[in-house]
Amino acid sequence: MNILVNPAPSTWKKELARPVFKTKEINKIVKPILRKVKRNGDKALYKFAHEYDHVDLDSLLVSEEEILAASAALSPELRQAIETAKANIERFHQAQASPELVEEVMPGVLCKRRSVAVQRVGLYIPGGTAPLFSTVLMLGVPAKIAGCKEIVLCTPPNREGKVHPAILFTAQLIGIHKIVKVGGAQAVAAMTFGTASVPQVDKIFGPGNQFVTAAKQLATKYGVAIDMPAGPSEVLVYADESAVPSFVAADLLSQAEHGVDSQVVLVTHTEKFAKKVLKEINKQLEKLSRRDIAKKALNNSVAVVLQDEDEAIALINEYAPEHLIISVQKEEETVDAIVNAGSIFIGNYTPESAGDYASGTNHTLPTYGYARNYSGVSLDSFVKKITYQKISPEGLKNLGPTVEIMAENELLDAHKNAVTIRLNYLKENNL
Amino acid sequence: MNILVNPAPSTWKKELARPVFKTKEINKIVKPILRKVKRNGDKALYKFAHEYDHVDLDSLLVSEEEILAASAALSPELRQAIETAKANIERFHQAQASPELVEEVMPGVLCKRRSVAVQRVGLYIPGGTAPLFSTVLMLGVPAKIAGCKEIVLCTPPNREGKVHPAILFTAQLIGIHKIVKVGGAQAVAAMTFGTASVPQVDKIFGPGNQFVTAAKQLATKYGVAIDMPAGPSEVLVYADESAVPSFVAADLLSQAEHGVDSQVVLVTHTEKFAKKVLKEINKQLEKLSRRDIAKKALNNSVAVVLQDEDEAIALINEYAPEHLIISVQKEEETVDAIVNAGSIFIGNYTPESAGDYASGTNHTLPTYGYARNYSGVSLDSFVKKITYQKISPEGLKNLGPTVEIMAENELLDAHKNAVTIRLNYLKENNL
Repeated sequence: MNILVNPAPSTWKKELARPVFKTKEINKIVKPILRKVKRNGDKALYKFAHEYDHVDLDSLLVSEEEILAASAALSPELRQAIETAKANIERFHQAQASPELVEEVMPGVLCKRRSVAVQRVGLYIPGGTAPLFSTVLMLGVPAKIAGCKEIVLCTPPNREGKVHPAILFTAQLIGIHKIVKVGGAQAVAAMTFGTASVPQVDKIFGPGNQFVTAAKQLATKYGVAIDMPAGPSEVLVYADESAVPSFVAADLLSQAEHGVDSQVVLVTHTEKFAKKVLKEINKQLEKLSRRDIAKKALNNSVAVVLQDEDEAIALINEYAPEHLIISVQKEEETVDAIVNAGSIFIGNYTPESAGDYASGTNHTLPTYGYARNYSGVSLDSFVKKITYQKISPEGLKNLGPTVEIMAENELLDAHKNAVTIRLNYLKENNL
Repeated sequence: MNILVNPAPSTWKKELARPVFKTKEINKIVKPILRKVKRNGDKALYKFAHEYDHVDLDSLLVSEEEILAASAALSPELRQAIETAKANIERFHQAQASPELVEEVMPGVLCKRRSVAVQRVGLYIPGGTAPLFSTVLMLGVPAKIAGCKEIVLCTPPNREGKVHPAILFTAQLIGIHKIVKVGGAQAVAAMTFGTASVPQVDKIFGPGNQFVTAAKQLATKYGVAIDMPAGPSEVLVYADESAVPSFVAADLLSQAEHGVDSQVVLVTHTEKFAKKVLKEINKQLEKLSRRDIAKKALNNSVAVVLQDEDEAIALINEYAPEHLIISVQKEEETVDAIVNAGSIFIGNYTPESAGDYASGTNHTLPTYGYARNYSGVSLDSFVKKITYQKISPEGLKNLGPTVEIMAENELLDAHKNAVTIRLNYLKENNL
């Protein structure tokens, strides 16, 4: 992790460039997977389980028994922690519900808007090095609150053909019963096209490696929606002398351990503070089990020293971090000045990991600069907002002439006529 | 327009298939346009204006004088109509604002969510056969309410190098001052990459022909967001004997006149009613100036007779129409049963054109079945919802252990350590 002192704004983009994907090469691998699942359904899924997960499955679906056994396999402490996190996430996402909107914009012209659940959703939960049961909470809880009719969870089996009990426990706690042992691009394909075991869905959520990410992007060509475009996880910590260097180091490392392509950025006002943090990083790093991953991620990472506060804020808004930790004296005005970020963690006692797991906010957030134009996953991600209108005869008399004139000037006769024919009918029938 | 009587559910998909795009061929034309604009900026835009709009422009930007002259070029009636429509759209979109959400999920754990404007947005307004000033309202009004910092409007010039005064008048009424004479895929490219005259934006909105649509899709590869994937416009009218056949016919025609690839669908309970509507269509069609377009669109269209109400609703939800007109006796329960639609128009006196222009709802809606998983444009489309959290020392003591246990079980040491290091610090310092 290098220290950059007062880099010119014109160099920020280059200096803070995120790792680049090799999309083309990955698509070359992923496209045939999609094609095979589309054509051969479950048969292809069993074959991919053999090939990629090194297991011959008897059934793709997790059984009742497996789900029931999961709870007993977890410590009471972990069960309690998951329940606490669920309660917080539920509370914060329930509060996001939009009440029905009703506006009589003119006498007799009633407009409404309602949230209606996306009917069929697919949640992808990665397996691999860590069982991400926290992501089951982050996607499953809002899906349930939204009232999605069909929720399917796909996650890769281990070599014994099992799914980690923490994932199963969390899913059943939320009320998700359809859990399929399928991972990678083939899981995305199955949810896109539907197979005998996996229902076709309207929207696919969830993180994953580059193959999953590529598959999700390709899937959108077949009418399915996805939560958001994804890149590797990242954090930017903005800290001044009021921050505790060891806390800052711990936060940077918690992001760095995610993956070798993660990026962490420190923005601070003095080189002295930056050096303190780097020293702490080196100290803490050696104790981490995932230190090799973290070390590689730190190679993509940088500490930026900017003496000027406005410049620091400008850099942050240009970078648009997924996670932004703000630990500075002028806390409130700094927070208010941020316009591009996924989620913001404020003060010395708010580690990113609080939001990653249990505070209630969602951890599925826009990476790769997409915080400029995307929100994180929320209750909104699981609903469509449908608008409604009902116009009375009186309302049409009030609004109709406006529509007629506008349609006429857009040279759309038939649009005008749909009003005129009704107004004439009202006149002819003395209504 | 054929009549289908009681088609089996398994055939619905095929019978109601939407027109297919030739994406590959269109991309072959659009990709070089993007590349040239990226490389040559304004110079490419002037060249494309010459090539596609048949005009040599002195300046890409619409001048102050042109904007000032626009108002005088419109009739007072049209100006008044645009102002009325603006007021309604403003009212309904202002009501969509989400207040700041604040939840103390546990003592000392404060979570918030705020709407923050997408900073730089680009609005594309097609030229061509009709000057779509209504779309200026539908995109510009919510952009202004959201507080977008930079709003650029791109629209193709005519052969005199001018933009239609109704577009200019509407833009200045809303407060949009940067209007660029550039159309087609090159406009999308300019807003994606930025040129000397056109600022780079974070999100691009607006309808357009297949080239514009393809360019928007391709643009997403460069980090820009778009309002939604787009296909040709469509309406489904669900009407029983309580509906007036001439109204139904007028509504179907108002959609059919949009373009030769538009699709209109009638769903009704008896063949007799369907025939009445078709008869009315033939009668009204001959009077329309755009009858040739409408006739071709009617060839993509179908009247479906389904005696069973539940089947009718199932078909509508499967089709997921952009516009849905419901004119049936059991109005309320039918409306409540619809889960997939862009915007719903209820009753005999609510033509789609009311919503297209002036009632207050947005007319930028998901087509092509995307009403299953996308909402129409709304105030939400112009903001990101950023989450915030601030945890006090007390809060971290409450929440921390939950985070530690979960992180430990996901095998993410550093995530755990970001909490532990703080809890230890609090203990050591008796805080």
